[in-house]
This record gives sequence, structure tokens and C-alpha cells, in this order.
Amino acid sequence: MGVGPDFLGSAQARADQAVTPDPEAVLSARTQAHDFRVCEVPLRALSRWRLGDDLAHETRRFFTIEGLLVETNFGTTPRWTQPIIMQPEIGMLGFVAKRLGGVLHLLAQAKMEPGNHVTVQVTPTVQATPSNYLRVHGGRATPYLEYFLPGPARGRVLVDQLQSEQGSRYYRKRNRNMIVELPEDREVELGDDFAWLTLAQIRTLLATGNRVNMNARTVLGCIAFGPAETRPSDPGPFREAVLASHLADAKAEVDEASTWLADVKTEVHLDARPIPLGKLERWIVDDESLRHESGRFFRVIGVEVQAGSREVVTWTQPMVAPVHQGQVLLLCQRREGLLRFLLQARVEPGFIDRVELAPTVQVAPGNIVRKSDLPPLAEYLSAPEAWVRLHAPQSEDGGRFYHADTDHLIVELPEDEQVELPPGFHGRWLTLAAIKRLMASGYYVDVEARSLVSCLG
Amino acid sequence: MGVGPDFLGSAQARADQAVTPDPEAVLSARTQAHDFRVCEVPLRALSRWRLGDDLAHETRRFFTIEGLLVETNFGTTPRWTQPIIMQPEIGMLGFVAKRLGGVLHLLAQAKMEPGNHVTVQVTPTVQATPSNYLRVHGGRATPYLEYFLPGPARGRVLVDQLQSEQGSRYYRKRNRNMIVELPEDREVELGDDFAWLTLAQIRTLLATGNRVNMNARTVLGCIAFGPAETRPSDPGPFREAVLASHLADAKAEVDEASTWLADVKTEVHLDARPIPLGKLERWIVDDESLRHESGRFFRVIGVEVQAGSREVVTWTQPMVAPVHQGQVLLLCQRREGLLRFLLQARVEPGFIDRVELAPTVQVAPGNIVRKSDLPPLAEYLSAPEAWVRLHAPQSEDGGRFYHADTDHLIVELPEDEQVELPPGFHGRWLTLAAIKRLMASGYYVDVEARSLVSCLG
Repeated sequence: MGVGPDFLGSAQARADQAVTPDPEAVLSARTQAHDFRVCEVPLRALSRWRLGDDLAHETRRFFTIEGLLVETNFGTTPRWTQPIIMQPEIGMLGFVAKRLGGVLHLLAQAKMEPGNHVTVQVTPTVQATPSNYLRVHGGRATPYLEYFLPGPARGRVLVDQLQSEQGSRYYRKRNRNMIVELPEDREVELGDDFAWLTLAQIRTLLATGNRVNMNARTVLGCIAFGPAETRPSDPGPFREAVLASHLADAKAEVDEASTWLADVKTEVHLDARPIPLGKLERWIVDDESLRHESGRFFRVIGVEVQAGSREVVTWTQPMVAPVHQGQVLLLCQRREGLLRFLLQARVEPGFIDRVELAPTVQVAPGNIVRKSDLPPLAEYLSAPEAWVRLHAPQSEDGGRFYHADTDHLIVELPEDEQVELPPGFHGRWLTLAAIKRLMASGYYVDVEARSLVSCLG
Repeated sequence: MGVGPDFLGSAQARADQAVTPDPEAVLSARTQAHDFRVCEVPLRALSRWRLGDDLAHETRRFFTIEGLLVETNFGTTPRWTQPIIMQPEIGMLGFVAKRLGGVLHLLAQAKMEPGNHVTVQVTPTVQATPSNYLRVHGGRATPYLEYFLPGPARGRVLVDQLQSEQGSRYYRKRNRNMIVELPEDREVELGDDFAWLTLAQIRTLLATGNRVNMNARTVLGCIAFGPAETRPSDPGPFREAVLASHLADAKAEVDEASTWLADVKTEVHLDARPIPLGKLERWIVDDESLRHESGRFFRVIGVEVQAGSREVVTWTQPMVAPVHQGQVLLLCQRREGLLRFLLQARVEPGFIDRVELAPTVQVAPGNIVRKSDLPPLAEYLSAPEAWVRLHAPQSEDGGRFYHADTDHLIVELPEDEQVELPPGFHGRWLTLAAIKRLMASGYYVDVEARSLVSCLG
């Protein structure tokens, strides 16, 4: 009765409490069990996709690539056009959770995604769109889906948040981030590609990098620790500080941050309108690819995938391929007795409500021509090794992005390091508790920040 | 130290505690002090407005009227086009609050709005858009604005919520709803059109109808009572039940309702795209007006306003004129020991996130051709008099809507009345506490529901 989910207990679980002894071995085994080949092809080679005012599948199911005209008073570029992904459906990203041996475990899938460098990674138990799972189209049913949908099979809802995806690549895309807990006595059949993991195990995979896919990271980022059932055993000074920041009483901080964020939203002008691809300015649109005439930013390319063990399945689809690797940095520092993280209010044209909280720095340095155009605080991307608490590459959504790894950095500044927030940089130092509470309202914390926060585990 | 705002004390204040003895007299005096003339003119008579792909002011400041193409799987009409108001700016709607004689009062303005039948009504202390108050254009400064803006003059923030406006008339329009409290010892100069009112006085004006404008109602609707400082003195059984519902512990109820609402959002498909006015289907667009060929729904017309006491100011502007009067109904009933209100999840093309909670019934019956097309539960619009707790006309925003009064009805069902929720009606019974908590997240409760809730005071 009334026993909480105890995410914290799972995050602090010892190795001998985990039912899957070696998660890396699970990923390797699944990599060997399947065979994948992914190669870039011209857009004209895409089967049943048509390039016109937009790039769309004949059936107009799935996503489309359209043009977007953006006008804003935020940042240094007042007007631009760009291709953007339109996908109005709300995808379901969900982990099944269950206590095993008294410790909460999440049911992870080891899944191949064609865009990723490391193709097999931990994904949520379910990642599917309603058109996948609601339509009858002769395909296999999505396993474990019934635990998330309304009805008697639904588990106890521990997390349920609608969140944005990359606002610079998707136009108002949302995902539903869920964790549902099944009772201990509910038998769950374990599919070949599935394994139960503790949050402690997942945190280790996150520290390695390229082991936990973007969809999993956004769900994990939404987890908020409740009052502790178990106390951690000597987790080291940084983790101790993270935990204290996570468990802080953040009510006043959240109210003040909401008002500050509303101030920024009120000052910002943003007009972002879909336009035909033919009206893109300085973008080359042909049956090879969509690409910027400067060669920078990203390309929209075709990809051919061959996958299968016994029978081979082949498909083609468009993907977004960044030209340069991105970097995201979260600065933190002990301030007023608690570890606080520096987020910035950032405008992206595809955000639901114009402004969300983003990492301290979010940049693809290769896109920057002059060093003076680097964003504020970019100098901390090369912080001294002793300050670095996490440094790992993480993949973007491997179903839409091709070879898109983003370098994740968490840097803890010494207490005597003075950080000057430059004019025009809308930054704020927040406890992890405040970040989680703002996140729970939906559309407050962007996917890059949620991904970094997930690594704090 | 730590004394709360005590909205509840203000809502339960006696007449002799109020510093303005007769609010009706204030409104009458202001009506007599000014002289207004408002008349409908053809669109071609609008000075400096141009009709083309959109209807816009030459300067492209202010709002525009554009076309919208809507496709959805929600409701009975899968595809339609309509004109819609575009106004990307976030308007500031704010009340200054202050304790006077120990009771919290709000600083109301008695203000003329050209679209309203009853032109002078109570409005917030400030209602302004950033382009009003940020640009220097030789006009008068907005009085009291400094108490809302970031800076040392800002009052203590009691309410600060971004909320939607009519999603069927505005495309993704938002307002910022604020109440800021000034310290008791802060001197505030009282302008001619301003008066301090208690929430009890405002509730009386709301019960009369057409005394409190839409912008004021949406701010008032956001007020949540904290733990009671004062206890009400025998307020009658309905108000006692409303209060208990407002002060209920709603944590679990809110979590369940959020998941239910996410279920609805996930099922719904909505694509709403701006189109040129020339592409509207079944709408007549000429230099007289925009109007539907059936004569139903609404018209976009021109309005000429002459206002002034000593010197006369004249201006022209477009307005939206509904053809038929709207009705909104909120059913409530004692269920599981608490008064609960029946809201429905409703899709409107201009909502920020597709779906919001709306009144039980929201309809302009004149637009309905066949009686069988009336929405579910419309029969309660003619509920027995003994069940009616509020019945009053309230104006829509008199700056955009012309002669748009909406009939507000709150009906309390006897406990033994069985209400069947028909299939396709996404209804849910919620305590007032749950409604207020959902509202606080922003974009969860639509403006019609907030307006009804404001009348519960």
C-alpha cells in the first residue's frame, strides 16, 4: 500500500541486485544476431517517395520534409528559411517497470536503428506512433503496448509527459514519455530483444556513450526521485551533490523561473510558417538531396536499409544528415549550498511555445565560420579534465537522423570560478529538482537538455 | 513573514470591508464621463487596412485576418476552411493587488471597449501588448505597467500563467495572466478610471453579467485559493460545496486527468494550416465583409469608433461579429463526497496543443440546422430553474469581437440525476482544485471554461 516507485533505489542498486548481469553483453549478442546494411542513396532512388512542394511518401503516411520561413527578434539571424520535418503524430515512448527482487527494473529493448553509428542500442520497451499501432495493416502487433494504452491492462502510471523534440529539425513534434509499473506478480514474457535493467546499469551505459538511444534518454530524463526509500551508500561527492540537488525543495525556485521564462516568451517575436520546398532560399533542392549552398548545416538524403537474420527486409527512406557533429554542454556549480545547473532560454522555430530551457551551450562548431560567432560560454567545451563529470557521444533519433552523434559534456565548475553571463544570453542556475518540476509541465525543457539530464541518472 | 495572498479572505469579505462601496456606481459614472459611438462599416472604409491574401494593417502591426485549412479526425466535420485571427504577440493581462484594511483588493479599471454591448466594464489594471508598451510611439505610457515587468518595481507575483484564447477564432493566441501584490505601505496613485475591489464584489458583478470583461475573467479564473487564513461565515450550501471542491487535495486526480488528456491528444489528428483568404471555400470575401455563404457562423466586418469626452478620437478596425449568440454550460454534481464539474476534452484548430478542457457544452445553437446536430448534453441548457446556480451573459473580448455576448450557465444536478456521457464525448468530472491545478500548467483549460470558473469566484 502506497509504496512509491523508488526510482532512487533503482538508481543506487548494487550490481548483484540486477537481474541482467551484463547489459553490454546483451547489446553485443543482439548486434551479432542481426545483420544490417545501411547506405546513402540519392533521393530519386527512394521507393514511393515524391519530391515536389514537399518530400512525402505516396500514401502521405509517415513524416514529410517541408520548407519553413522563420522570422524572429531572438539571436543574431532575424530571418531564414530551412527544410524541416513535419510529423504531427504523437509518438509513444514507454518503459515498462517492475520490481524484481525488491528493486525497480526497466524493460529495455536492444534495437537496431539505421541512422546510428552504433546501430544496436537500448531503447524504450515501446516506441511507436499511433499509425503504427492503431491501424490494422497485417504487421505484427507492438509487444507490450497494452500496458501503456487506456484499458484494464495499463500499468500504474509513474511518468507521463508530453515533450518536444529538436525544435530546429522538427516542426512542433511531440512525444509522449511514459513509464508504467506492473505488479510484482504479473508474469511478463521476455522477448529475445528485451532485458530488465536497473537505473544504475543504464547510468553506466550512458557514461560509456552511444549505448542508450535518444528516445530512451528523453524518457529517462523525465524521472524525478521522490522522497528516498533507500539511502545511497557512499556514492562519491559529485553524485551526492547531484542527489541533494535532485531532492531539494524547489517550489519558490520553480515559481520564479516560470515568471522569468514568461518574461522571455513575452519579449520574443517568432513567426515560423511552412512554405513549399521550392521557396527555400540558399538551399539546393534536387533529386540528389536537399543541401545548403554553403555546404554547412545539414542535408536531407536518401538511405537504403537492409536488415534481417533469416529473411532480409529492405526499405528506403529520407533522413537528415548533419554536416558537422553537435556538442551540448551543461555547466554546474555549487551555489547557495546546492549544485545548480546553468540552462538558457532558447528559441527554436519548431517549439510548441517558442521558448524552452536548453543546455548551457548547444552548438555544431563546424557550422561557425568566424570564431567570434561561437555562442557564449563555448570556451567551457574545452574545460580542464578535472572539471569534467561526463563526456560521451550520444546518438540523435536513429530513425530520422543519419550518423548524428552529439557530444555530451557535463562540467562542474569550482566554487571560486566566476561565470559572467553575457548580455543577450538568457541564462539561469537551477537545481535539478526545479528542472524536473518545470519539465513535468511539458514543453519547458528541450530534448538536448533532457538528454544531458538523463545522464545524471 | 510568509503571509499568503489570502484570495479566499477577499472572496469572503463583507461589504463593509471593501474600500469602494458601490462598484456599479463606478461603472455608471465612467459610462457618463465618456461618449462612445460605434458603427459597422464596410471593410473598404477601413483606413490603412488592406484586403489581399490576408486582411492586414499597412504597417503589419496589430493583428491580421487570414484563412485556415483544418483537417481532423475529431468531431463530425473532417475538413473545413475558415477565417482566423493571427496575433502572435503575447498580451499582458494583469491585476495589481494590495491589502487595504487587512483585506486583499484588486485594482480594477473601468474601461470602454467598442465591441461590447455594455461598453464600460471592469477590466484588469493593465491589458496591453508588447508592441503597445515596448515601442516608443509618442503615446501615453501604460499606467501601472511597471509593477508587472521585470525589474525592481515588480510586485510579488501571485499569479503568472500563459493561457490560450478562443481556439476557434484565434490561431495559437496566448495571453499572460498575472496578479502582482504590492506591499501595504506602497503608495499607489488612483487614476480616474480605477477602483479597488474585493473578489466578493467582483463575484457579484459576475453574477449580474456583462460587468467584467473577458480579459478580467480569464485572469480571475486562474486564482487558486491556498490554505484558508479566514473561514467563511455561512456562505450557503452551494458556495460551501464550491469551496470544499476548491480546497480538495487533488494530486491523484490531476495525475489521472493528465494521463486521460494525453490519451485524447494521442488519438487526435489535427492539421491546421494558414492559407490565403482567396482559398477559403464557401466563404464570400469582398470589400464589404468576410461571411459564410450559408449566412451562419461569423462575419469579419469593419467598425468605426468615435470616443472621447473633451477631444474626440476616431478609429476604424476589423472585428469578428458572431451571427448567433453563444452558450456555455458547466454541469456540476456532488460525486464521491465533493462537488465535481463536468469538462470535456475539445479540439480547436487554434489551440497551442490541439486539445484543451472545455465547458460541458459550448455551442451557438443558431448555427445548428438540425436539432439532432446539437452537441451532447445540450438539453441541460434548459435545466429547471431550481438547478441553476449562475445564469448571466458575459462579453467576449470587446477589442476583437462585435456584439458577442455568451450566455453563461452553471447548473448543479441533484445527486440522483443520472448523466450518460455519450460515445465520442470525452468528458470528465473534476473537482475545482483539480481544474485549477491543471490550469496552472498552461494551455490545459480553455478560455470559455476559465470564464465560467471565474464566476465561481
